[in-house]
Amino acid sequence: MSNPLEGIDQSNEPYIIVSSDTHAGLYVDDYRPYLESSVHPQFDEWLATRHEHRVMVEEMNGAYVEQWERDNEHGLKGAYDPDIRDEALDADGIAGEVIFADGDAVTGMEAPPFGAGLHAGAITDPTLAWAGARAHNRWLEEFCATNPPRRAGVALVPVTHGVEESVKEIHALADKPGIKGIMIPTMWHDAPSYGHEMYDPVWQACHETGLVVHTHSGEADAVAYNENMAQYMLEVAFWTHRPLWQFLLSGKFDRFPNFKYAPVECGSWWLGDLLWKTDVMFGGTNWKVKKMSSRTHGLIERLPSEYIGENVFIGASTMSKVELRRRYVNGVDALMWGTDYPHPEGSWPNTRTRLETDFQQIPIEETRLLLGLNAVKCYDLDADALRVIADKIGPTPEQLNQDPALRTDPNAIREARWWFEDYGVPWPS
Amino acid sequence: MSNPLEGIDQSNEPYIIVSSDTHAGLYVDDYRPYLESSVHPQFDEWLATRHEHRVMVEEMNGAYVEQWERDNEHGLKGAYDPDIRDEALDADGIAGEVIFADGDAVTGMEAPPFGAGLHAGAITDPTLAWAGARAHNRWLEEFCATNPPRRAGVALVPVTHGVEESVKEIHALADKPGIKGIMIPTMWHDAPSYGHEMYDPVWQACHETGLVVHTHSGEADAVAYNENMAQYMLEVAFWTHRPLWQFLLSGKFDRFPNFKYAPVECGSWWLGDLLWKTDVMFGGTNWKVKKMSSRTHGLIERLPSEYIGENVFIGASTMSKVELRRRYVNGVDALMWGTDYPHPEGSWPNTRTRLETDFQQIPIEETRLLLGLNAVKCYDLDADALRVIADKIGPTPEQLNQDPALRTDPNAIREARWWFEDYGVPWPS
Repeated sequence: MSNPLEGIDQSNEPYIIVSSDTHAGLYVDDYRPYLESSVHPQFDEWLATRHEHRVMVEEMNGAYVEQWERDNEHGLKGAYDPDIRDEALDADGIAGEVIFADGDAVTGMEAPPFGAGLHAGAITDPTLAWAGARAHNRWLEEFCATNPPRRAGVALVPVTHGVEESVKEIHALADKPGIKGIMIPTMWHDAPSYGHEMYDPVWQACHETGLVVHTHSGEADAVAYNENMAQYMLEVAFWTHRPLWQFLLSGKFDRFPNFKYAPVECGSWWLGDLLWKTDVMFGGTNWKVKKMSSRTHGLIERLPSEYIGENVFIGASTMSKVELRRRYVNGVDALMWGTDYPHPEGSWPNTRTRLETDFQQIPIEETRLLLGLNAVKCYDLDADALRVIADKIGPTPEQLNQDPALRTDPNAIREARWWFEDYGVPWPS
Repeated sequence: MSNPLEGIDQSNEPYIIVSSDTHAGLYVDDYRPYLESSVHPQFDEWLATRHEHRVMVEEMNGAYVEQWERDNEHGLKGAYDPDIRDEALDADGIAGEVIFADGDAVTGMEAPPFGAGLHAGAITDPTLAWAGARAHNRWLEEFCATNPPRRAGVALVPVTHGVEESVKEIHALADKPGIKGIMIPTMWHDAPSYGHEMYDPVWQACHETGLVVHTHSGEADAVAYNENMAQYMLEVAFWTHRPLWQFLLSGKFDRFPNFKYAPVECGSWWLGDLLWKTDVMFGGTNWKVKKMSSRTHGLIERLPSEYIGENVFIGASTMSKVELRRRYVNGVDALMWGTDYPHPEGSWPNTRTRLETDFQQIPIEETRLLLGLNAVKCYDLDADALRVIADKIGPTPEQLNQDPALRTDPNAIREARWWFEDYGVPWPS
């Protein structure tokens, strides 16, 4: 396994920070000019439900909504105003960003038509699913073109509503400057699961164009929760990263070596244990391997953990302390910091303060990967252009209270992936 | 939080070992006399599919089946022969056992009628679900009566096919010596999820009778795996322990304080992280708590981790090394060792060898909990009667190569549950 830390700058140069999880979107009514007129009647109906939803949220949680919107009035407009957005990014020290739909996480008033963003899986009519996605994509292309080196847009592709159409859309998107990925519905619902071969043309198109595939936290198996919010919060990570294993274990990263995938805003805490489970399935000596059908066995060319940091990256958003401590087992070359701007769950508008405390015990070289270089690799971003921005606004290692003498233990990753020792799995060369 | 290790014998007395995961069942054809005659025609059809399945497994995996059945010919008969079973338990050093259905994990030839055991969720006809369950329960009552202090039988109750009928069956089962728990379908499929209030009379009946509720590894979301065995193996633990969170987070353990639940043969590695997530939801100071609806919030009286070892026990089967290392975070007072006899995934017939190596670094007092006393508490077993058996066949701490001077660090549990420190959650008094 090559050393991901080799050759990384350990000086006090400012960090190139890429937020791997930001959101942008028009106020719902303002999507109309981007939406094909044939679905305007359905759009009007949907708009009415959005406005009703806003009223309901205000009734349930009015004080919180009011304070959040008042305290952040200016910065929240960056969801659709590129100049205000750049101010907010500058203030947070963020050079580049990976932009998802749904600017407003509090009352949902910046959702793409018909909820084609974070709740795309809930749309049952293919016409509306595609119309909503394309409306957002048209706007997103314009929005990302306002500052191409800085903005990496993630377009919407409802793959469960048509493979052929998805392939066409992906190829069309790939020509737009600033579009660097696609988001697919987090859940496949009644459609075949994402490991099914019917979707292979989609992953092939992503392999050819380099657009990174994403699922983003939002949907879960709501019907099972009986309106119990804690059940949702407990399971939402599972439903978000579930497609990773569909892709990896069915050999999609072998068939399409340039196909890359990132689950977003579902943390990274779950990753190490599932790499243990899957590495041991394919590389261990226990009984299960012997019973594994050759059909499955033959589909994977490397150990599952070897795809992490190559085909698989993790949009880990604002990492918790424990997730930073577990960075070696989960993949110091795969985790991507993110602010979740302009959502309230993330670090915005206090990203600098957060970085100043959370990274004190982390070597500079690793911090460069986690805060930016992993995203540069994943999305093939323009590092030189980002460097120019970072030189003006990026925090330095000194500003993050880091000890320049701190170095990474060369055995750190191997020791953190304890299952190689416990199960006698040979360490990849 | 009280100290679960207080007062536990640290001498060289033999361990009372309770296998919290064993299996028993008749050869499929032999269930006929226990099955109501009205469903004999359907039974004949089902038997034919079982015999076809055996032929298919032999074709796919013949060498493995042949060797397993030849090497273990005598001991495998303990699935239904009580004398041979006691020989096998003695040889493994096992004093007591918690008995689930489906003796034959290799070719499925000891399944209860219609697959009413580990695959009960797949039955769609309520008549067959109940007929199969009751046939097994009738036989299990007889089987457990052959050696009551030693055998704790887990009866089958298909709760998704009728709440009222379930309540009646639970009360009838509670009168039978040797029946200590019920197994419900692992997945609820199209029925309401287990947190739904419609099932409350079932949990109340378990609260009243003391029968412990179980889900056992077996079922998963098969249609999503596209015949890829690795996908199944990756997800099967999630589907098995999913009901835990349905019960815990909807406050069932508060409403029914004597209701106990154990997920079985899905390991314990997933538990600590989910306790972190849920403890922080209810006891932390982050934004999510503030947004948590009072409906949900009010349902839980304690932190989720406080129910572990009280209402929640883990049938952790043959624990892996890492699971033993993580015993403090997961619950040294909740984990229950199990051999999975007579299945090939477990430690039988080499349990003694396994124990001699795996427990060397574990203090005697903790080993007593993990190997037996946690199960004694969970199932309210007859400890005195088990002590008599253990004195004859149980291994001693010396035989497990343990250091009698090894003591548990009094802060071990608190330090292992790192989220109390990280998130400033107050430690329960």
